[in-house]
Amino acid sequence: RRGEMAKSTQLIDNEVFRAFATYAAIVLLKMMLMSLVTAYFRFTRKAFTNPEDVATFGKGEAAKKYLRTDPDVERARRGHLNDLENIVPFVGIGLLYALSGPELSSALLHFRIFTGARILHTFAYLIPLPQPGRGLSWAIGYIVTFSMAYNVLKAVWLL
Amino acid sequence: RRGEMAKSTQLIDNEVFRAFATYAAIVLLKMMLMSLVTAYFRFTRKAFTNPEDVATFGKGEAAKKYLRTDPDVERARRGHLNDLENIVPFVGIGLLYALSGPELSSALLHFRIFTGARILHTFAYLIPLPQPGRGLSWAIGYIVTFSMAYNVLKAVWLL
Amino acid sequence: RRGEMAKSTQLIDNEVFRAFATYAAIVLLKMMLMSLVTAYFRFTRKAFTNPEDVATFGKGEAAKKYLRTDPDVERARRGHLNDLENIVPFVGIGLLYALSGPELSSALLHFRIFTGARILHTFAYLIPLPQPGRGLSWAIGYIVTFSMAYNVLKAVWLL
Repeated sequence: RRGEMAKSTQLIDNEVFRAFATYAAIVLLKMMLMSLVTAYFRFTRKAFTNPEDVATFGKGEAAKKYLRTDPDVERARRGHLNDLENIVPFVGIGLLYALSGPELSSALLHFRIFTGARILHTFAYLIPLPQPGRGLSWAIGYIVTFSMAYNVLKAVWLL
Repeated sequence: RRGEMAKSTQLIDNEVFRAFATYAAIVLLKMMLMSLVTAYFRFTRKAFTNPEDVATFGKGEAAKKYLRTDPDVERARRGHLNDLENIVPFVGIGLLYALSGPELSSALLHFRIFTGARILHTFAYLIPLPQPGRGLSWAIGYIVTFSMAYNVLKAVWLL
Repeated sequence: RRGEMAKSTQLIDNEVFRAFATYAAIVLLKMMLMSLVTAYFRFTRKAFTNPEDVATFGKGEAAKKYLRTDPDVERARRGHLNDLENIVPFVGIGLLYALSGPELSSALLHFRIFTGARILHTFAYLIPLPQPGRGLSWAIGYIVTFSMAYNVLKAVWLL
C-alpha cells in the first residue's frame, strides 16, 4: 500500500495545490474565528438565544432577561454568514481552479487578493468602517472567485 | 517541477472530474448570484440592516427609516440560505463521488438533474411559484445528493 | 482514455482518503438531515414562512395564522446553521489534511472524534441537554478542525 499512498499524495507536491491549501486553510480558519467573536459578544453583552444557555444566571425571570438580541452579536453573526456565502464558493471553485493547471503566479494572485479582501471585509464589518469599505472588500473577493470560475470553465471546455 | 505538476493536474483530464468541475462551478456561481439578487432588492426596496449602509441617505431619522426588513429581501436571503444548505453538500459529496470512479453517464445524470433542480428551485422561490413547485425541486436535488452519497459509501466500503 | 481515468481515480485507493470520504459523507448527510428535522417541526407545529406554503390551509386570515415562528422550528434551524458553520470547515480542511499525507491512525482519530462530537452536538441541541453539553461537543469539533488545519499548514510549509 505504501506505493499507492505515495502516488495519491502527490497532489500536495504540486506548487499551485500547496498555495491553495495554505490560503484555503487561512480563510476557513478566519471564518471559524467568527464563532469566537460571536461567543465573545454573547458573553460580554449577556445576549443569548437558548433557554439552556442562561440557566446559570438563575431561574425564571432573572435568567429570561438575557434571552435577547444585541447589535454587536447580530453584527458578528451577519459577518459569519457573509463569510459562509463567500468563502465556501472560494474554497470549492478554488480547488477546481488549482486542479485545472493554472500558472503559479496567476493562482497566487487570485488566492492572495481574495484572502486579503476577506480579512479586510471582517474588519470593515466589525469596526465598522464607513461604506463603501465593506462593499468594496466584498466585491473584490466576489470578482476574484468569478475569475477563477471563468478559468475553470475555460480549462475544462478547451481540453 | 514541470513533471510533477503535469502528474498532479491529471485529475482534470478525467472525464467524470471534468463534468463535476463544470456543474459544481455552475451551481456555485448560481449560489453566488443570490448575493446580487439580495443587493438588488435592498437597493430598490431601500431596506438595509447596518447603520453604515444608510449613511448616504442622510443623518438621524431620515436614514434610520431605511433600517428595516422587506419581504422581497428576506425571500432572496432565504433562497440563498437554502442554496448553502443544499449546494454545499452537493459539492462536497459530488467531489467524493467523482473520485470514486462512477460511470460517466451516471455521473452526468446526477450532476445535470441536481443543477436543473436547483435552478428551478431558485425561480420557484423568487417568482414565487405555487407549492409543491419549490418543494419538489428541493426534494429532487436532495435525493440526487443522497444517491451520490450512497454510491460513495458503497465504493469506499467495497474496495 | 481508460488508462488516464484509472490513474486519476487512484485517490480513492488511498486509505486515508477513503477514511475521509466515509466520515465527510456521514457528517454531510447528518447536516442534510437537519432540513428534514426543520420540515418535520414546520408541519407538526404548523409554522411556516412563505405565503405560498400555507395556501393549502385556506385563504386569507385562515392561512395567515400559520405564517409564524415556532421555538422548535427555530431551534432546528439554529442547529442546521451551526452545522454549516462547523461541518463546512471540517470538509474543506479535512480534504486538504487527507491529501497532506498524515498517518492513517491520526487521520482516523481526527475524523472519528469530529463525527462523534457533531452527532452529540445535534442531540444536545435538539433534546436539549443542559449546558455545557452542547458547548463542549461544539468545542471538541472546533479543536479537531484546528488541529487538522495546523497539520495542513505544517505539511505545506515543511515540504
